[in-house]
Amino acid sequence: MSDTLPTQSTGVATAAAELLRGLRAAPPLTHSITNTVVTGFTANVLLALGAAPAMVDITGEAGMFAAVASGVLINLGTPTPEQRQAAREAAAGATDAGTPWVLDPVAIGVLPVRTRLAHELAALRPTAIRGNASEILALAGLSTGGRGVDATDEPEAARDAARALAARHGSVVAVSGAVDLITDGTRIIRIANGSALLTRVTGGGCALGSVMAAFLGTARGTGIPALDAVAAATLVYTLAAEHAARAADGPGSFAVALLDALAAIEPEDIAPEAHVEERAL
Amino acid sequence: MSDTLPTQSTGVATAAAELLRGLRAAPPLTHSITNTVVTGFTANVLLALGAAPAMVDITGEAGMFAAVASGVLINLGTPTPEQRQAAREAAAGATDAGTPWVLDPVAIGVLPVRTRLAHELAALRPTAIRGNASEILALAGLSTGGRGVDATDEPEAARDAARALAARHGSVVAVSGAVDLITDGTRIIRIANGSALLTRVTGGGCALGSVMAAFLGTARGTGIPALDAVAAATLVYTLAAEHAARAADGPGSFAVALLDALAAIEPEDIAPEAHVEERAL
Amino acid sequence: MSDTLPTQSTGVATAAAELLRGLRAAPPLTHSITNTVVTGFTANVLLALGAAPAMVDITGEAGMFAAVASGVLINLGTPTPEQRQAAREAAAGATDAGTPWVLDPVAIGVLPVRTRLAHELAALRPTAIRGNASEILALAGLSTGGRGVDATDEPEAARDAARALAARHGSVVAVSGAVDLITDGTRIIRIANGSALLTRVTGGGCALGSVMAAFLGTARGTGIPALDAVAAATLVYTLAAEHAARAADGPGSFAVALLDALAAIEPEDIAPEAHVEERAL
Repeated sequence: MSDTLPTQSTGVATAAAELLRGLRAAPPLTHSITNTVVTGFTANVLLALGAAPAMVDITGEAGMFAAVASGVLINLGTPTPEQRQAAREAAAGATDAGTPWVLDPVAIGVLPVRTRLAHELAALRPTAIRGNASEILALAGLSTGGRGVDATDEPEAARDAARALAARHGSVVAVSGAVDLITDGTRIIRIANGSALLTRVTGGGCALGSVMAAFLGTARGTGIPALDAVAAATLVYTLAAEHAARAADGPGSFAVALLDALAAIEPEDIAPEAHVEERAL
Repeated sequence: MSDTLPTQSTGVATAAAELLRGLRAAPPLTHSITNTVVTGFTANVLLALGAAPAMVDITGEAGMFAAVASGVLINLGTPTPEQRQAAREAAAGATDAGTPWVLDPVAIGVLPVRTRLAHELAALRPTAIRGNASEILALAGLSTGGRGVDATDEPEAARDAARALAARHGSVVAVSGAVDLITDGTRIIRIANGSALLTRVTGGGCALGSVMAAFLGTARGTGIPALDAVAAATLVYTLAAEHAARAADGPGSFAVALLDALAAIEPEDIAPEAHVEERAL
Repeated sequence: MSDTLPTQSTGVATAAAELLRGLRAAPPLTHSITNTVVTGFTANVLLALGAAPAMVDITGEAGMFAAVASGVLINLGTPTPEQRQAAREAAAGATDAGTPWVLDPVAIGVLPVRTRLAHELAALRPTAIRGNASEILALAGLSTGGRGVDATDEPEAARDAARALAARHGSVVAVSGAVDLITDGTRIIRIANGSALLTRVTGGGCALGSVMAAFLGTARGTGIPALDAVAAATLVYTLAAEHAARAADGPGSFAVALLDALAAIEPEDIAPEAHVEERAL
């Protein structure tokens, strides 16, 4: 997808290089409450990149752990009653401690339990919200969502929904797709890196939510805004996916190569290959 | 194992080619309630093949999702109380909506909780029941099962049990092993494709249950009987396993190559390599 | 890490060869109650090696299954209420039946739920306790632990804690790190095989706990002491990791190669490459 947008030496590429350097120098403890389908892959993505993953998704521990973590992901893919309560604890613990946290409202829209929980958590003002276009439309109240985890809409179709959500909750909103769209309600960043193979690996999107939490954790105290940190996470991840796709024979070898590429990517690799566009909204 | 049965251009190979084409043209939403050991691999198998996986295993969502899905798998490998109730909802939702569903009674026999649940769900007349010989014998009431997830019996030892189960519940019954045996109580199909490496990868059998659900979903409205759809799923999956085994250095690289092979296999690859035998019972 | 200790033809290498031969001749049914992040990888490690994995982590089944299993692992990485109760059942069932069992007190110290459970289970005198230095220090009451799953201390820092724990609970205590340290309170074994890539794969340590349970299961009736069986498991696993690291381009391909290497390693490969030191305490 590298021809959609011109290569530019933007602020996002600069921020991505700085944050990747910082992440490797001081691995951010990244607390992921996520679905049972992608736990292993998510942890491996974080370890490969250089972050320190931990999954603490029980009540009585999730909140206190969110307070000491560098960043938190709450992903609603398989929200058991225990995990729903742990998610509430984690959101509260993160908020109280000032830990940045990311909400991934997986497959909301038609499914009522996660949809209610997503609205409840969004009202707690996550640092970032990440989803496909259907999920972002559903969270903004502009659609009842797709038929499940499929993205049935393109990111651009969710642009106004993303802007509305960002304004309503003070969150950075990231919509994934062939061209990723990220906004804080004022600026909008589009990233045209990546590989279609990411959609053929389970957790290809979910793991990115954890990478965003790791980058937000590393960004604390640097002065890099949350919008740029979320975009930087997307850029590093999708660039690694491009590298991996070159070596892959299919989705199985791609997932393996993605982990190798996340470990191998260096700060100076980013700017020359970044296809990023940034505009005022 | 490709010498056990002659290569034949059977109805199964024709159905497999037609269903694989249909699956890729319109990815079936395949709802899998499955065990925590194999969730990621199962989703990756479905994505590699071209289907659309979703795991919705909480109460309040599982039933309604089964109603809108193309096909459903209920696998009893790690049945928590929440998942047991979600499985009941999903079976009821699928039945009401006419969604085909597959029951995989993992490790039943000695373990009481899952054994009771398997009998309860089987009485709801699943479209298909899939297991190893020990599990099928146990579900038919002819054995107390193996010592766990091991197959301690060969498929042929479960032939009469499979026939009895098929007649009792109106289900297609599939017994996996070196030669897979599939029956609807009237006809019996044997498939001698595959690789012993499938038994060295966790989820090698469990993921096949989801592939059966996907093929049954694609078969809806085509006139292809459930027996042929289940056999077609088995044939495509075991053929991909043969392809993968050629490229593998061991069980780790085999699992990766299996995903690549599932993505690469084409409808016209099937008939020339199929080792299928079909008979009246 | 193969230069830290000289290659020696110790009793551990001899025991490792004998146990690996025995494990492949009669695969030990290895019951793992483990965290949701590493279930699939753990099962794949056991299958690759030649053992028979099973995860039975619900109440009403975990205890009876521990009684019939060859060996049991209880890992506290994601201890839901259901799994906590299943862990108690499994520990009791294993103890009553004389099944060797391994406790892995993941991330204890600060997190209260798992810390209480780890102390409760340790008092039931596990055959072996496995952890990183922070976890072993915390279980011995000498530290409040690290900041999560990170090992923030080196194994040698936990030597006295390991000795104290071993004496208190009659357990073999294994502390993982660049040089693994294993003691029964009387003898101490150090193993300097392995690869730093093990720390970049989720479950790299957790899966070793299951391998220890498998080796302890195979050791029953052989006269090989639990200390030597735990050390043998560590030696085979870390040697396979060395082999895998030679073929790897990063953490993704390393995890795949580790499974291939576990399947490929032969009893006669062990002694020539073992870096083991054994002393009286």
